[in-house]
Amino acid sequence: MQRYRFDISYDGTDYRGWQIQPNAMTVQERIEKALCEITGEAAKLHGSGRTDQGVHARRQVAHADLSSRVAARGLKKGLNALLPGDIRILGVARAADSFHARRSAVGKEYRYFIWNAELVPPFIRRYRTHVRDRLDAGAMAEAAALLVGRHDFAAFTANPNRPVESTVRDVRKLTITKRGSEIVVSAAADGFLYKMVRSLAGLLIRVGEGGEAVTEARAILESRTRTARVPTAPPEGLFLWNVRY
Amino acid sequence: MQRYRFDISYDGTDYRGWQIQPNAMTVQERIEKALCEITGEAAKLHGSGRTDQGVHARRQVAHADLSSRVAARGLKKGLNALLPGDIRILGVARAADSFHARRSAVGKEYRYFIWNAELVPPFIRRYRTHVRDRLDAGAMAEAAALLVGRHDFAAFTANPNRPVESTVRDVRKLTITKRGSEIVVSAAADGFLYKMVRSLAGLLIRVGEGGEAVTEARAILESRTRTARVPTAPPEGLFLWNVRY
Repeated sequence: MQRYRFDISYDGTDYRGWQIQPNAMTVQERIEKALCEITGEAAKLHGSGRTDQGVHARRQVAHADLSSRVAARGLKKGLNALLPGDIRILGVARAADSFHARRSAVGKEYRYFIWNAELVPPFIRRYRTHVRDRLDAGAMAEAAALLVGRHDFAAFTANPNRPVESTVRDVRKLTITKRGSEIVVSAAADGFLYKMVRSLAGLLIRVGEGGEAVTEARAILESRTRTARVPTAPPEGLFLWNVRY
Repeated sequence: MQRYRFDISYDGTDYRGWQIQPNAMTVQERIEKALCEITGEAAKLHGSGRTDQGVHARRQVAHADLSSRVAARGLKKGLNALLPGDIRILGVARAADSFHARRSAVGKEYRYFIWNAELVPPFIRRYRTHVRDRLDAGAMAEAAALLVGRHDFAAFTANPNRPVESTVRDVRKLTITKRGSEIVVSAAADGFLYKMVRSLAGLLIRVGEGGEAVTEARAILESRTRTARVPTAPPEGLFLWNVRY
């Protein structure tokens, strides 16, 4: 068996997320099927983590074990020829048996793109969350700064449906960038809880709209309780930006 | 009757072009239906020109005459609420009876976007023409410069299916811009013949690939005859960029 690492980019608009689901097309399933067409093997693809329905990936990383000895370069070409244009294989490389797309990851970065104007240009509509009311990006940046660090982020995870060992995460970066009508939330951490980035974005948007005072961000964090004060922002603005190993 | 001017942006991917066709959805039809829903009138929308199936518009301009006295601001809001996200009404304004979206236009600008790399990122795949072989942007720019000016562009129009009075056009600008993997052909003229921009782009891509010498651009222009040396480049990279009045 040889382990391979896959670097993958996808437009999540038309998929029910990354992970295989019954009765719905997912990114994982699409790639596994293409892999099987090329190698004849029903290999399982292990992603660095799931992305939800409608969430995009600038760079997702996954691994799979193959018994066929295939050239990485040929595998990349073959996969891209078989896959639709909304999924691209950026790279394929042989990896050590010790490499694990999820467990070997030491950090992840997400970016959440908001279009803050009356209209979203048609050409970016699939990749931006539309907020019509004028956002105070300065207030959002101040609130974001209050959330940076190693904290219990239980107030920022939604309905996990699975017990997690710990809700403590080390948020190394949470910044706001504004350029014209675009406001981008950039988040980097050792890892993220279920729906954590969309929850952080949801609160920051509320702060930007004036629906919550800047200092409340800290109080909400310290409450360690998820309430309606933290809405889950929509998926279309969210990109898994990078996975670090 | 009051004449209104509409400034419109659209992603042409899912439409059979601008102009109304039987048994196919077009941008014009979609907007006319929305207009009728708001005003109750079956008004005809006159565009500055047609765009073909799959061609986009950063800014298309159209006019319509309405007997209902509707506020331009309300009309814009109502249309955007009814239209899908791939068509946006950038502006609505009352116009003089003498304004005609096609006949009053004094110039048009198109841009043709080429992605010159092994892979097209999923997020721009609907808006770029993919060319894998490395293009010589310098050669393309030299050839483009030979085509600028007032000339008979009969060699650059395809199967018009309609007699045109003259195939002479004044091309004021035809430039090549390269930034990373992106090569953009920018074309401005008093007007363009049927499929003229895609024909210019088709020849310039052949020159960039080395399939045609730079100086041949002038010989082909002067032949005033359309041949296989001028392919029609695919529609997805083409944007109607602006209409000047």
